[in-house]
Amino acid sequence: MTEAEIIQRFFQVPAQGISDPDLLLGIGDDAALIQIPEGQQLVVSSDSMVIARHFVAETPGYDLAYKLVTVNVSDMAAMAATPRWMTLNLSLDSVDEAWLKAFSEGLFAAAKHYAVTLVGGDVVRSGELNLGLQIMGTVAAGKSLQRSTAQIDDDIYVTGSLGLAASAVACLKQHGNDHEKLTAAQSLALYRPNINLDFARGLVGLSHAAMDLSDGLLLDLQRLCAASQVGAVVQLEQLPLADSVDELMALTGGEDYGLLFTASPAAAKELATLAAEQACVIHCIGSITKDRELNLVRDGLRQAIPTSLGFDHFK
Amino acid sequence: MTEAEIIQRFFQVPAQGISDPDLLLGIGDDAALIQIPEGQQLVVSSDSMVIARHFVAETPGYDLAYKLVTVNVSDMAAMAATPRWMTLNLSLDSVDEAWLKAFSEGLFAAAKHYAVTLVGGDVVRSGELNLGLQIMGTVAAGKSLQRSTAQIDDDIYVTGSLGLAASAVACLKQHGNDHEKLTAAQSLALYRPNINLDFARGLVGLSHAAMDLSDGLLLDLQRLCAASQVGAVVQLEQLPLADSVDELMALTGGEDYGLLFTASPAAAKELATLAAEQACVIHCIGSITKDRELNLVRDGLRQAIPTSLGFDHFK
Repeated sequence: MTEAEIIQRFFQVPAQGISDPDLLLGIGDDAALIQIPEGQQLVVSSDSMVIARHFVAETPGYDLAYKLVTVNVSDMAAMAATPRWMTLNLSLDSVDEAWLKAFSEGLFAAAKHYAVTLVGGDVVRSGELNLGLQIMGTVAAGKSLQRSTAQIDDDIYVTGSLGLAASAVACLKQHGNDHEKLTAAQSLALYRPNINLDFARGLVGLSHAAMDLSDGLLLDLQRLCAASQVGAVVQLEQLPLADSVDELMALTGGEDYGLLFTASPAAAKELATLAAEQACVIHCIGSITKDRELNLVRDGLRQAIPTSLGFDHFK
Repeated sequence: MTEAEIIQRFFQVPAQGISDPDLLLGIGDDAALIQIPEGQQLVVSSDSMVIARHFVAETPGYDLAYKLVTVNVSDMAAMAATPRWMTLNLSLDSVDEAWLKAFSEGLFAAAKHYAVTLVGGDVVRSGELNLGLQIMGTVAAGKSLQRSTAQIDDDIYVTGSLGLAASAVACLKQHGNDHEKLTAAQSLALYRPNINLDFARGLVGLSHAAMDLSDGLLLDLQRLCAASQVGAVVQLEQLPLADSVDELMALTGGEDYGLLFTASPAAAKELATLAAEQACVIHCIGSITKDRELNLVRDGLRQAIPTSLGFDHFK
């Protein structure tokens, strides 16, 4: 197969299930052409996934593609944006038609689920499988959430539960990457984290700051605090641990892809209403402090901070 | 170094030399936030470069980064767009500070030259060096060039000369990737192809169809013809061969990064004026035909088509 044939057969899907009057020109030219609706701003993010680093070779192509879209959609949720378009940089170490078919199906299933259209990218040969995806979304002018605007005395919230994806990774490691050993819940947490875009957009006006949980609660919270020039205290007994997840995994395990956000205590009731309306489970796990430290507290007593706060590729 | 330190030290350059009122939020949050000026459309493209496929390990980091930006800017030129913003997906097999410094310098030198701002991306660990870059530009509504709109009897033009980058690749291959063996012209052709954005934008209204030359003249011309549902005849004696480049290399060698475009013969005088004004060398190399074939002609006689029309990763 030539590059053009791979693109045409697996990626140039004429009707991706989404009608998009703003996409003026999609796959097939030197670039895609997009009309940004009036009053909207462009939101852009990009995340790569590399074999043996972000996923094991045994990961089904469908799941891999679905997750690649999902982790990028997660960044859109963190900005309260609506994901719209994406480009794919696919580096293939081999051309396996069955794998490409599964990958393509997973990609377009996720694209349909989150209403994102593939508008371009490239397919190249490489020595190892490397997936780069860039996502573009829109947000009404001035209506995005950011991580640098947390305020002192804000409550700190997370959506969903913590640590289940990390426990899935640990389970795979323990069992030679045998996916049969994963519980259904672990498999869902690892490959189908659900991004609640309606809830995220509902946070605008209620939440002061938000980001997505990708590298571990403590590391991500530290980043939010650094960007906002504040500190935080986390109440350990309030952490929503997933079943069979220990506290350390919940604090430092990555890949949760829930939202971490802060809001004034005065917004608590409205937040609870929004969460109920959008079927989103939220937990208040602590509060933002003036002193720029990260503190863990259990039953009023300060606890030691884990040596590693989360996942870093280069540490 | 942590991932955050690599980003901060080498990529989060506060003043990239470009004042950009449309960039509302750059590197550091979950996503970048961009205001598209009124009346402008968004143009999006993405190209990867993988070690041992697109470049040799001996390629200096500065040159590699400069070229990565350039090949993406080339796609913007092909649409007559103005490049504005880019995201970088950098997969590193090692953390070499000197290399990262050189890469960063090359990236920002090219970014400054073409007035593009790095707005996001990610840095991950990998087993081999893999560079993904997505570029975003703007174009006035309805003023982009496309490859699917060539018209029968159009003249076919190329900018610059053909085959010099391919001859540089051949030279490196012949001499064990010793960069000292490259002539200055070869080195420039391979690592600093000059994208003439003013000329490209000037083509709007004069040219019917355009694309950039990346994989070899014949393969790219075949793509333009297929998209436009036309054919082409190339007059071999009119090919602008670079010094010491043979005809086959000019026809099928990739990486020229000039423009391939078509225009009505009636536009020839205006095109010559534009080319002179923008210091762009252009050559008419043939014409668009109704029958959907690719034909090579020398002195009125049909010549054989090369077996391989250009570069394909998967053939």
